[in-house]
Amino acid sequence: MDTLTGPAEVIQTSAIALDKLDYDAWLACFTEECSYEITTHQNEVNHWPCGLMHAFSKNQLRDRIASITTVNIYEPHRYRHILSQSHQSKDSLNSIWITGFSVYRITLGKPTILFVTGEYRDQFKFEHSGVTILSRQIVLDNDQIDTLLAIPL
Amino acid sequence: MDTLTGPAEVIQTSAIALDKLDYDAWLACFTEECSYEITTHQNEVNHWPCGLMHAFSKNQLRDRIASITTVNIYEPHRYRHILSQSHQSKDSLNSIWITGFSVYRITLGKPTILFVTGEYRDQFKFEHSGVTILSRQIVLDNDQIDTLLAIPL
Amino acid sequence: MDTLTGPAEVIQTSAIALDKLDYDAWLACFTEECSYEITTHQNEVNHWPCGLMHAFSKNQLRDRIASITTVNIYEPHRYRHILSQSHQSKDSLNSIWITGFSVYRITLGKPTILFVTGEYRDQFKFEHSGVTILSRQIVLDNDQIDTLLAIPL
Repeated sequence: MDTLTGPAEVIQTSAIALDKLDYDAWLACFTEECSYEITTHQNEVNHWPCGLMHAFSKNQLRDRIASITTVNIYEPHRYRHILSQSHQSKDSLNSIWITGFSVYRITLGKPTILFVTGEYRDQFKFEHSGVTILSRQIVLDNDQIDTLLAIPL
Repeated sequence: MDTLTGPAEVIQTSAIALDKLDYDAWLACFTEECSYEITTHQNEVNHWPCGLMHAFSKNQLRDRIASITTVNIYEPHRYRHILSQSHQSKDSLNSIWITGFSVYRITLGKPTILFVTGEYRDQFKFEHSGVTILSRQIVLDNDQIDTLLAIPL
Repeated sequence: MDTLTGPAEVIQTSAIALDKLDYDAWLACFTEECSYEITTHQNEVNHWPCGLMHAFSKNQLRDRIASITTVNIYEPHRYRHILSQSHQSKDSLNSIWITGFSVYRITLGKPTILFVTGEYRDQFKFEHSGVTILSRQIVLDNDQIDTLLAIPL
């Protein structure tokens, strides 16, 4: 595992790791005390809680990965992330990196479909040993989410 | 509003501003004497005028924004821009930044659809106070444009 | 033709050249002793040979271009490449640049369709005269490829 030395590199690596189903490489993008949440634009606008997926530590992300790699009750599939250019927001005290994305779902023997669009809102932890994700909030554009949200985004 | 210090930053900011329906942030990306035009590849190849949208000053862009924020005759929707990597063309006297994009349209209670694909061709004004768009030509790939082109791209 | 001075610039230029049907600009992105291959994820996983397209020198790419520009047996169409952020992999002796992409196919009078998704895996040759592609492997996500793969990706 290489040391990741910048936010852009971490964002790219996390997406490509999922596309390769390389969950170890994905987990390596997060710091131990990280938070990770998937919600929707409508949830956010209406101040509804109820994210589609959330974890409040890297161990919870590990549990999630363990469950999807050991219990295969869903049809095997992969993602393809297309990341728009990242944008560093300086509105707040903490820098947030916003990255729009589209994710396609690839299933053997079926047409590729547009799965979701949305944006990452990432905050990072900068250490001599490298850069890792401290907080990732994922806001999906559409409320009509396929129930098949097994693999993280 | 932050000062934007480079073309890539302005391109990203203009797209993310529209996706958030933050029209002030979008307008801030343009200089006062800007031009803005949306046309199609077929129009361009055939040297047909008739862009789908055009403005020859920032005030005309302000008028456009005023009309869509006060007269809501269309179904409320949002965009999600996915920007390809930008490419700086050095063919001409003036540098043109070309950025391919796909734009999805998100409507509450409906599936997200691919709205348009095309490219930005941007020229910039560089000042001590920041970088702004001097000229944006948007060339859409497909002639079959939905009539619902209300929000700028 | 400008000299391309970095891998990212070459990746962008090669995609935009194809989108403009500017095959000379596309060919200029490759070195003479290049290799170019299109395969699928399933082919790769199963160690099957049989790429969808391959060339083992720039002259073979020139032949390919000559055939598509002189023999028009297919319906005229263009592409729109949307490139995700590139990621430089340092796993091996040689740096490989991985770039996810989606490609849309645009045909006059028809709706734009998502044609393929996949990734470039590029190796470069660095010379004083500029940077060129030494090896490009294209791995498509889906096996269900349209037979109409005439233009390189």
